[in-house]
Amino acid sequence: MTFTTDSTIFTFEGKLLKLTHDSKETKTPMNVNIYLPKGYDSASDKSIPVLLYLSGLTCTPNNASEKAYWQPQADKYGFAVVFPDTSPRGANIAGEDDSWDFGTGAGFYVDATTENYKSNYKMYSYIHSELQTLLQEEFKSLNFDNISITGHSMGGYGALSGFLQNPGKYKSVSAFSPISNPVKAPWGKKAFAGYLGDNKEDWSQYDPTELIVKYEGPADATILIHVGKADPFYFRDAQLLPENLVEASKDSKFKDKVELHLVEGYDHSYYFVSSFVAQHAAHHAKYLGITP
Amino acid sequence: MTFTTDSTIFTFEGKLLKLTHDSKETKTPMNVNIYLPKGYDSASDKSIPVLLYLSGLTCTPNNASEKAYWQPQADKYGFAVVFPDTSPRGANIAGEDDSWDFGTGAGFYVDATTENYKSNYKMYSYIHSELQTLLQEEFKSLNFDNISITGHSMGGYGALSGFLQNPGKYKSVSAFSPISNPVKAPWGKKAFAGYLGDNKEDWSQYDPTELIVKYEGPADATILIHVGKADPFYFRDAQLLPENLVEASKDSKFKDKVELHLVEGYDHSYYFVSSFVAQHAAHHAKYLGITP
Repeated sequence: MTFTTDSTIFTFEGKLLKLTHDSKETKTPMNVNIYLPKGYDSASDKSIPVLLYLSGLTCTPNNASEKAYWQPQADKYGFAVVFPDTSPRGANIAGEDDSWDFGTGAGFYVDATTENYKSNYKMYSYIHSELQTLLQEEFKSLNFDNISITGHSMGGYGALSGFLQNPGKYKSVSAFSPISNPVKAPWGKKAFAGYLGDNKEDWSQYDPTELIVKYEGPADATILIHVGKADPFYFRDAQLLPENLVEASKDSKFKDKVELHLVEGYDHSYYFVSSFVAQHAAHHAKYLGITP
Repeated sequence: MTFTTDSTIFTFEGKLLKLTHDSKETKTPMNVNIYLPKGYDSASDKSIPVLLYLSGLTCTPNNASEKAYWQPQADKYGFAVVFPDTSPRGANIAGEDDSWDFGTGAGFYVDATTENYKSNYKMYSYIHSELQTLLQEEFKSLNFDNISITGHSMGGYGALSGFLQNPGKYKSVSAFSPISNPVKAPWGKKAFAGYLGDNKEDWSQYDPTELIVKYEGPADATILIHVGKADPFYFRDAQLLPENLVEASKDSKFKDKVELHLVEGYDHSYYFVSSFVAQHAAHHAKYLGITP
């Protein structure tokens, strides 16, 4: 068995599985949670669409599993939700655990190229390729060819960049308080310098605001983004910069197709994310071809 | 101001307030969260019904606020939700912090009479009287005369016992995995001995299974209970004993009115609680006279 099931949790009308498996990309064991919705039938080939949810800094697969409330939405529409981890854990790299916004819990969904990190911090290849291949082999009734992507904060950036880097792979993308222009944000600069080195061209290949201009793939789906106006990472720290993405999109295939909702009063927490999950679920269901 | 607002969190279509205040009953500062639903209007006198949610062992007001998913239900029906703490904190009683199931985080919703605890552990009077009086004075549009009660585990016991001890006060009661017969359960025996001493008659006044037989008040509302069959505190440890309550109810005013749902596969966690919150919300809304 590729996956070990640490627990099978009955919740809402489906089951949440907490899995671990060995990754060739990260060369570590990896944790991943998956929600199999109401009506899940392991004997039915490739019948169930998938939503990939990428989490933010410091998170494990459990934060969103407990607090985002995707489960009732997944039951309503009949999609599975995959909650990957945010980095390898226990790679034993010097300095890996020194800060909360770099290293463990902060893999930034890139394939690292710097000396210390390049052996293990292959989160881009892990998330967009290896993990999905392994899950497809194990869960044959899920359809990883009918998949959308979303995420929160660092994971919102990961969703946007992953969508734009893989034209046609994901049916739709959305994001909650995404780091939209990481090459200009403190978190992004620190992570990209640490994982990719000093060459800014290497950074650009992961930056949603730079990627959207060059994007040549299908642009049927609008890009749905919510950001709380009371989010200090937005209004105080300039970590998110969603307006930069909107501005860049005006000269892109997504002209008039980035739906940025700046919502009064909401913060950066899961109290905010859970508030808008129903809207994001409806968005993805539409492009996954699901009618509830 | 009686209450200090530590934070005001926009979530779903309402606001969650994290409050602290001094309690005369516990002689400590107390934490309480309150969710003011969509449409809350502070100028509208006593218009909004209240649901009191009592939490389980080790919990603060935040666990259920983050994980139980009451907010969208409160928005749907238009009731406020009050999330009290589970004990005084920082009373500085010797031994108070020695175990997770007694003392801090484990007040068991009784008025303690034992020497060490009687000055501070007045959670019965705090929950059913003082807290409600103070909140009514501060939030004039809430109607604490139109209130129902629910809770989880120790809080499920607290809801059942509080309902039965105060005939007519609460319009309805429900419980998630309640400690239904604490005088016969390890948790209950430890708590009652520590807070009430060795006189078993003192224990009986808090035991739902003993109280229900003697209950003489209104019995219009059914009592809704969910317990997960995969909950180890139920199937392994005999902490919950909900069948004892059902059995006792046969000779009570609640004959055929205790709706015990033993649900296959579910555990004791908030993954379970959140799964059935919508059903409990509908139950209480009915008896609070709300139509969504």
